[in-house]
Amino acid sequence: MMRMYDLIEKKRDGGQLSEDEIRWMIKEYVDGSIPDYQMSAMLMAIFFRGMTDMETSIMTDAVARSGDMVDLSPIRGVKVDKHSTGGVGDKTTLVIAPIVAACGVKVAKMSGRGLGHTGGTVDKLESIPGLRTDLDKEEFFSVVNKTGIAVIGQSGNLTPADKKLYALRDVTATVNSIPLIAVSIMGKKLAAGNDAILLDVTTGSGAFMKKLEDSIELAKKMTAIGDAAGKRTAALITDMDTPLGFAIGNAMEVKESLEVLKGRGPEDLKEVCMALASNMLYLAGQGSLEQCRQKAQEVIDNGQALERFADMVEGQGGDRRYAYDSELFAKAPCYREVTAKADGFIAHMDAQSIGVASTMLGAGRETKESVIDMSAGIILKKKTGDAVKKGDVIAELYTSKEELLDGAEMRYQSAITIGDTAPEEKPLVLARVEKGQVEKY
Amino acid sequence: MMRMYDLIEKKRDGGQLSEDEIRWMIKEYVDGSIPDYQMSAMLMAIFFRGMTDMETSIMTDAVARSGDMVDLSPIRGVKVDKHSTGGVGDKTTLVIAPIVAACGVKVAKMSGRGLGHTGGTVDKLESIPGLRTDLDKEEFFSVVNKTGIAVIGQSGNLTPADKKLYALRDVTATVNSIPLIAVSIMGKKLAAGNDAILLDVTTGSGAFMKKLEDSIELAKKMTAIGDAAGKRTAALITDMDTPLGFAIGNAMEVKESLEVLKGRGPEDLKEVCMALASNMLYLAGQGSLEQCRQKAQEVIDNGQALERFADMVEGQGGDRRYAYDSELFAKAPCYREVTAKADGFIAHMDAQSIGVASTMLGAGRETKESVIDMSAGIILKKKTGDAVKKGDVIAELYTSKEELLDGAEMRYQSAITIGDTAPEEKPLVLARVEKGQVEKY
Repeated sequence: MMRMYDLIEKKRDGGQLSEDEIRWMIKEYVDGSIPDYQMSAMLMAIFFRGMTDMETSIMTDAVARSGDMVDLSPIRGVKVDKHSTGGVGDKTTLVIAPIVAACGVKVAKMSGRGLGHTGGTVDKLESIPGLRTDLDKEEFFSVVNKTGIAVIGQSGNLTPADKKLYALRDVTATVNSIPLIAVSIMGKKLAAGNDAILLDVTTGSGAFMKKLEDSIELAKKMTAIGDAAGKRTAALITDMDTPLGFAIGNAMEVKESLEVLKGRGPEDLKEVCMALASNMLYLAGQGSLEQCRQKAQEVIDNGQALERFADMVEGQGGDRRYAYDSELFAKAPCYREVTAKADGFIAHMDAQSIGVASTMLGAGRETKESVIDMSAGIILKKKTGDAVKKGDVIAELYTSKEELLDGAEMRYQSAITIGDTAPEEKPLVLARVEKGQVEKY
Repeated sequence: MMRMYDLIEKKRDGGQLSEDEIRWMIKEYVDGSIPDYQMSAMLMAIFFRGMTDMETSIMTDAVARSGDMVDLSPIRGVKVDKHSTGGVGDKTTLVIAPIVAACGVKVAKMSGRGLGHTGGTVDKLESIPGLRTDLDKEEFFSVVNKTGIAVIGQSGNLTPADKKLYALRDVTATVNSIPLIAVSIMGKKLAAGNDAILLDVTTGSGAFMKKLEDSIELAKKMTAIGDAAGKRTAALITDMDTPLGFAIGNAMEVKESLEVLKGRGPEDLKEVCMALASNMLYLAGQGSLEQCRQKAQEVIDNGQALERFADMVEGQGGDRRYAYDSELFAKAPCYREVTAKADGFIAHMDAQSIGVASTMLGAGRETKESVIDMSAGIILKKKTGDAVKKGDVIAELYTSKEELLDGAEMRYQSAITIGDTAPEEKPLVLARVEKGQVEKY
C-alpha cells in the first residue's frame, strides 16, 4: 500500500517519484484522500528538490486526465494552440489566430479571463457587441470548421487537479517553482486536445518570470512535456519588460490588433506577432519558418487575415462591421494626459505597475467578481528609449469614472523612470526552444 | 498585519524570521487561525533552510509558553533535569536521579511513557506495586522536598504547541529536522521549570540520531537554547549503537538499575550513569566534574543513593522493600533461549530491532492504547565484541504469552551480526557540549 508520507520523504531526500506514485498521488489528492497538509509539504519539497523531465511529464499527464479531455476530432485538419505566460498589453492572440486560420490551420482556442495586472483574450473580445465566448461544444466545432477560428472561455470540468493544486500553491508560497508551473500550464494544454502547441514565455518586468534564464528553463520543461506527450511543441521567449504595442485595455487592444491585421499598427507588436504566427504555422507543418513567415505576411497584405477575424466575430454572434470600422467601439467619457516630469529619455517602464494602473481605471479585475469597463485603459505615447521633454504627454488614461484618474495617474508616474541616456535596445524575441535545443537571438 | 504566506516565503528564500513573526506564528497556529497546510509548508521550508540559534531560541520560548509553565519554586534548592533523546535499555534516570538526590540536589522529574521501540521511565517505575506516577502538584512538591526526588508522568496542559506541531511533523516527513527536534525537546524542558538541564543525546543504531555529527549538531542547538533561556545547560553524546546494560523490559530494567545503586551491575551502564550524574551535579554547582564524580561514587558506596530510591518509592506510594530485594518483582512465566547460529564475534547489534523484539514480547507499546507486560523483556547474554560459539546462548526472552516467543526470536536473530573479528571498541561517552564548546572523547 502506498503512503503519502513515504512519497514526501522520498522527494525531500532528493529521490525520483515513480509513475505509479505520481498517478496515485494526484488521484488520491483530487479524491480528498490525501489531505492538503501533506500535499503542501510535498509541494515545498518539490520547490527545493525540483522534478526530472520524467516526473513532470507523468504528473502533467495525470493532471490533464484528472477531468474532461477535450476531443477536437470533429474539427477537420491540424489544430494548433498557443499559450502565453501572460503580460501587459499582450493582445497577440487576436492578431495571430486570424493569420494562422487564413493560412488554412485551425485555431480552436479556449482562453482564460484576466485577473490582476494582465488581461484575458476572452474579455477583450467581449468588447465587440453581441460576441459570445460561451459557445457550447457543437457551436464551437461548427464555427471553427466554417471560419477556421473560434475563441471561447474555458468550460466543463477541465483539470480539477490543477485547480486544487494551484489554490494550495497560492497560499503556501509554492507557486514559484518552474516544474510546478510547467505541469500546471501543460496539464491544461494537453487536456485542450490540440495537435501542436506554441508557448510564448514572456520575460521581464511585466511577466511572471523576471529573468531570462528562468524563462528558458521553464520553456525547456514545458517543451519536454509536450514532446513526451507526442505533441509538436516549441517555445519563444519574448520580452515583456515594456508593454507590447501602445494600447492597454480591452476595446483599445482589439482596435490596435485590427490595425496590425490591416498592415499598420506598432512595430513591436507586429514583430512579435509575425514570429508567433510563423512558428505556429511551422508546428502545423506548413513549411520552413521562413516560408511560414511569408505566408503570414501574404494573408495580412491581401486582407484575408482581417476577413477571418470578421468571420469569427460573426460566427460567435458579434457584429462583423467592428472588424472594419474601429470608430464603432465604445469610447470612455473621462480622459487625462500624463506628462513627463523631467527632460531625458524613458529609461525603464515597470510593465506590471502599468498593468495595475490600467486595472485601477476599470480595465481589469481586482477580484473574480469585478465587472470590467470595456472602454477603460491606457494609450502609451512614449515608450522605453524615447526622448522626452518635461511636460510632454507620455500617456493618456481613459475611464468611465472620473474619480479613478488620480490614483491611476500616480501609479503610472511611479512606473516610469526618466534618465539621461537611452537604454540599449533589446530584441523582442530573445530565444527559441524546440526539442531540447535553445537558440538565443 | 502579518500573513503566514509571507513568513513561509521568507523562510523558503533563506531569510530569518523575526521574534514578532515567530511568536505570532506559534500563537495563531495553536489558536487554529493558521491552517495545517500552511504550517506543513513552513516546516518543510525549515527542513531545507534550517533556523538560526536566535530563531530556535524564540520559537522554543513561544512553544514553552503556549501552555502551562510549571512553577517549581515550592521546592527548595537547586532543581536539575536530565533529558535523554531515547534509546533501548536506557534506564539511566532510575540510577542517576537517586544519586543526584543523595548529593543534595533536587530531582523533580516529569517523564514520558514509552512508545515504539524505546521504553519510558514512568512505565518502568510502575513495575513496583503500589507506586503511583500520577501525583498531583502538591504531592509531587512534598515528595521532592522530603526525599529529594520524585518521578511523575506529564500532566496538565504542557506545550500544546509542541503536541500540535509534532503531530503534523509526524505525517509530513518533517520530524527529522535538527532545529525542530531541538525546539520540541527544549520547549518541554523550559516549561518543566528546572534550573539546570543535562541533555543525554544518544547516537547510533538504537537512537533517533544515527550519526555522531548530527548528534553534536543537535546538542549544540539545544544547549544554545538553554543558554539563551538562562538555564545552566550541557549535553553528553552517548553511544546507543548497543543497548545499555543487559536488561531490556520494565521490571528487568529496574532490577538492573538497583544493581548499579548497590555498587554492582554492568560496567557500561555504570560508566554512562557516572558521567551523567557527575554532569548533573556539576550543572547544579556542586564543584568540578572530578569532585562531582567522587561525590556520586560516595553515595553509591555508602548506600545513600539506594536509600533515596527506596524513599522515592515509598513517597510515591510503592513498596520500599523492592529496592532491597529484587526477588520480589514479578517474573514472566514463559522463557526462551536464543542461541548463536555460528562461531565468531558479535560484530554488530541493531539496537532498534532489539527494542522492537522487546515490544513484541509485550514490554512496550505498539500504540498509545497498548497494555504493558511488566515482566516481559530480554536479557542479553552476549554483546557487541563478545566471542561466541555456535549454540551459545546469546539472549533470553521473557513474556507472559508463549505465542509471542517465535516472532520475537526471529526479530532478535535478525538484529545480530556475527563476524570473524571483534569490532573496535568505542567510548561510551563520545563528546560533551557546553556553552558552544564541543569536547570529543
